[in-house]
Amino acid sequence: MAGKLYVVGIGPGSYEDMTIRAAKILQESQVIAGYTVYVDLIREQLGDKEFLATPMKQEVDRCRAALAKAAEGKQVAMVCSGDPGIYGMAGLVLELAGDYPQVEIEIVPGVTAACTGGAYLGAPLIHDFAVISLSDLLTPMETIEKRVRAAAAADFVLCIYNPSSKKRADYLKRACGWILESRRPETVCGLARNVGREGQSVEVLTLKELAERETDMFTTVFIGNSQTRALEGRMVTPRGYRYE
Amino acid sequence: MAGKLYVVGIGPGSYEDMTIRAAKILQESQVIAGYTVYVDLIREQLGDKEFLATPMKQEVDRCRAALAKAAEGKQVAMVCSGDPGIYGMAGLVLELAGDYPQVEIEIVPGVTAACTGGAYLGAPLIHDFAVISLSDLLTPMETIEKRVRAAAAADFVLCIYNPSSKKRADYLKRACGWILESRRPETVCGLARNVGREGQSVEVLTLKELAERETDMFTTVFIGNSQTRALEGRMVTPRGYRYE
Repeated sequence: MAGKLYVVGIGPGSYEDMTIRAAKILQESQVIAGYTVYVDLIREQLGDKEFLATPMKQEVDRCRAALAKAAEGKQVAMVCSGDPGIYGMAGLVLELAGDYPQVEIEIVPGVTAACTGGAYLGAPLIHDFAVISLSDLLTPMETIEKRVRAAAAADFVLCIYNPSSKKRADYLKRACGWILESRRPETVCGLARNVGREGQSVEVLTLKELAERETDMFTTVFIGNSQTRALEGRMVTPRGYRYE
Repeated sequence: MAGKLYVVGIGPGSYEDMTIRAAKILQESQVIAGYTVYVDLIREQLGDKEFLATPMKQEVDRCRAALAKAAEGKQVAMVCSGDPGIYGMAGLVLELAGDYPQVEIEIVPGVTAACTGGAYLGAPLIHDFAVISLSDLLTPMETIEKRVRAAAAADFVLCIYNPSSKKRADYLKRACGWILESRRPETVCGLARNVGREGQSVEVLTLKELAERETDMFTTVFIGNSQTRALEGRMVTPRGYRYE
């Protein structure tokens, strides 16, 4: 009997922030797989299941374990934070799927950090934007630099995932330096930390101030375009509607 | 008594695709406001409510009507398809909010078309990407052109909203022309039509083929980066994980 693997976006973390479809799929699944932290976020609500939790940096093993379980005929849900298609596991699962031809795969989208962080900050992504990860674990730094400069020069709003970590403490500062080559220091920016989880906070600040901020892997960074404004403590990018 | 206005992303359209939080807020609200088509998508599930549906191109009136209802002390939910912060009403509501200082505003994120369409196509947005609308109703065509060229040259995956309409029948073809200046004609692309609604379909094709396709405002277009592949009919962008 063929099994099925769902790759499920759970959104920022709390049970309420996943879609009704995602919650139903998790309830129906026999096995819940994923990175330990995300599995723990939802373990309580799911009751009696088989859990396959794997630590960070074991992505290939995690995907193979989930595919192998599904190949046994089980319904497996692999959880990802945010959306599984944005820096998530959907891609790797589909790349490895050829080795498990009997497994049906379905990707179930979720609310990504750009949308969650954006909502708490205001409306920074109302106009064209670029999403860039500053992690150079899997991407050469020259590629990241080229993309940051190009997006800044073309006046995209920038949404930055993985802005820094302990080993990459100065990466956000470097990125701000590249952006400052084409954007004013007063450009309106935003930080969204731990959004949808404990210790959630947002901050609206200038690009010049952002360059001096320390961040971590639970922070999403927003850099406004030339039109973005700070309105009553919120970060708002206009679309261009006229009103009086 | 001060009212509250929620600006709620309902995702692609079917009730199941909104978050549990969004569904709760709609159930609790006294008034449901929004563009007629989106209000009709969820009217059935909501029963006895006051509905404030407004046709297209009346965005300012729509937002003011919702803010005015909330100013009367009501709990109002304004629905947007996808995420309200991505080409949605969250920005305009916050821009107009200064005229209704007694109204509390909360933005409730949803699953945007980039994520829904991406999930049905496979995993096109696994690496850095740019989201661009080809609608020049509110944005000069030179700005759009500059952004499309910049994103293509920096090897971003592109996700295109509003690729064309009756009045703008050749816009996608023009955009493909700009992209072909720096990308191969064989670049893997995807089309996601009416995803999450009746008549849903997806297609994986080359950039050269895409340039000849007719699309409409219910289609989201994906243009892969130099690494994106077609795998078993799906569009997959690798993140860079190594495996055997």
